[in-house]
Amino acid sequence: MAGNSLNVAVVGATGVVGREMLKILEERSFEAHSFRALASPRSAGSRVPFQGDELEVETLTEDVFQELDLALFSAGGDISKEFAPLAAQAGCVVVDNSSVWRMDPQVPLVVPEVNAEDLSWHRNIIANPNCSTIQMVVVLNPLHQAAKIKRVVVSTYQAVSGSGQKAVDELESQVRALFNMQEVECNAYPYQIAFNCLPHIGSFLDNDYTQEEMKMVNETRKILGEETIGISATTVRVPVFYGHSEAVNLEMASHVSAKEARGILSEAPGVVVWDNPAEKIYPMALEATGQDATYVGRIRQDTSLENGLDMWIVADNIRKGAALNTVQIAEELVRQRLVRP
Amino acid sequence: MAGNSLNVAVVGATGVVGREMLKILEERSFEAHSFRALASPRSAGSRVPFQGDELEVETLTEDVFQELDLALFSAGGDISKEFAPLAAQAGCVVVDNSSVWRMDPQVPLVVPEVNAEDLSWHRNIIANPNCSTIQMVVVLNPLHQAAKIKRVVVSTYQAVSGSGQKAVDELESQVRALFNMQEVECNAYPYQIAFNCLPHIGSFLDNDYTQEEMKMVNETRKILGEETIGISATTVRVPVFYGHSEAVNLEMASHVSAKEARGILSEAPGVVVWDNPAEKIYPMALEATGQDATYVGRIRQDTSLENGLDMWIVADNIRKGAALNTVQIAEELVRQRLVRP
Repeated sequence: MAGNSLNVAVVGATGVVGREMLKILEERSFEAHSFRALASPRSAGSRVPFQGDELEVETLTEDVFQELDLALFSAGGDISKEFAPLAAQAGCVVVDNSSVWRMDPQVPLVVPEVNAEDLSWHRNIIANPNCSTIQMVVVLNPLHQAAKIKRVVVSTYQAVSGSGQKAVDELESQVRALFNMQEVECNAYPYQIAFNCLPHIGSFLDNDYTQEEMKMVNETRKILGEETIGISATTVRVPVFYGHSEAVNLEMASHVSAKEARGILSEAPGVVVWDNPAEKIYPMALEATGQDATYVGRIRQDTSLENGLDMWIVADNIRKGAALNTVQIAEELVRQRLVRP
Repeated sequence: MAGNSLNVAVVGATGVVGREMLKILEERSFEAHSFRALASPRSAGSRVPFQGDELEVETLTEDVFQELDLALFSAGGDISKEFAPLAAQAGCVVVDNSSVWRMDPQVPLVVPEVNAEDLSWHRNIIANPNCSTIQMVVVLNPLHQAAKIKRVVVSTYQAVSGSGQKAVDELESQVRALFNMQEVECNAYPYQIAFNCLPHIGSFLDNDYTQEEMKMVNETRKILGEETIGISATTVRVPVFYGHSEAVNLEMASHVSAKEARGILSEAPGVVVWDNPAEKIYPMALEATGQDATYVGRIRQDTSLENGLDMWIVADNIRKGAALNTVQIAEELVRQRLVRP
């Protein structure tokens, strides 16, 4: 593979997603000439595990991109906004996990199982979609190819790890505090997340939807290349550490039975059908954690519509929802020879 | 009030809902000549708190109904199936919290804010609806009266207390086990509920929906008296102790703006609008716990439809979803003189 002479870096290497990126690069034996771990000055000098050894974390600077061919960014929107264009200008291809470049018409927004062909028009920045969107479009796309989707109503059940390590720690410390009759502290979220559901992810916009909800609308349309699909999303944080779940209702342009949908999805790349009610087999966040696939189950004919389908979609939000999809984009760039030393 | 000479019993007085019924009868100063606490022989002789004192729990027998005018049942479907007809025959009016009588055409299914008039045709058994259905119809009805609802897509986030005390204890013990590196035991549910979401409430039916999902379909239609409303439900158990949340998407027959919906709902009985995104005000399970109202927020215009509305509905599943609604039915029976000593 052409990847073996690339100089590769993970930017934001000490975060939940950055660490997972390194783990996945290692697991999938991503070939490169060198790997570097970059982060803020605060983390510089610390070490992150990699390939049975450790990488020393270096401070992210503008100059470093002269020495890099490929950088996987997961260091927050501000860092991406500032450094991705500098990297791109220096000839380093960026796969960016933040939201800042996703809707830029000059930036491909890619889920490799769905629209790997969009990588061909990259200008050195490729955006990785929102976690909730990725797992949904992996399942929607094969159904859309088979019978066109007219409208989607989705409600999410999102894990705290989507908000980073501080939120993982906060759910844990809130649970401990409650069980020890101590006061609960809320920093990562405006309200207690332990044993609660927060219908609020990202800021509220003028239409009273949240940023997260509109990401699901706009990113899904861009990835599927269908501006007319109707999408209504309600995104909700639940007290789960890892794994996003989604209840998805589809209005299809023509009839697809639940059985046909199962057939289509069982052939689809990146999708695993877990759907046997009689045996209590359906996807769950706990089971999806640490896995690469997107799981779908509870597929049923919605008789409240002429061509309706209901389903339940679950994936590891840190893997397929972030780090894995980023590495898959990197692999696809190498395969299509769209990144070069 | 005519209630003051009634002989009243709570059947299943030691359960989560039974205890809450006693608490609510006390809180609302329900007038009666006597109150009795009935349960299985296993619980007989134990005592439950009531009106600053205690009631001794008596064994439920067929004969007891000769001495009763009104019985509030929450002892499970099997007990209701066996004893409600015996009570009815003995002239005791039953308000039943189980699912066994709900769809019987001779049994009114009542949410007092919505269809109190259906009590008039009772034949000594009145059914209390499913918890998820009650809180939804309290909000749906005023919108339906204003502009007719054509279709509902609902996804639920249901608390473990809906499965009784054993499930409350199981969530707590699973969390403790996990935090102490011990093995998790699953009895109340087929899989771990701590830090997980289970898309499975009640048994699976032939159409692959669950009982709980079809309750939301069939009961909503019966309560609203509209057999043609399309309803698609996905019901999900989440690691929350008290308070059910619901993401609800509505297709209206004519246009209702989010602002108009807020106006209609702020006048509606039993409904409190908590909806100010700028101030991060929206309903949450934790805030609804212990409250009587059904809370609605996140009301927004769904532009993926001509006349679409999205909203988020939360209530205390043990109070409005069960015990409170049952007591409200009892109050309404007294008010309408539909129960007599």
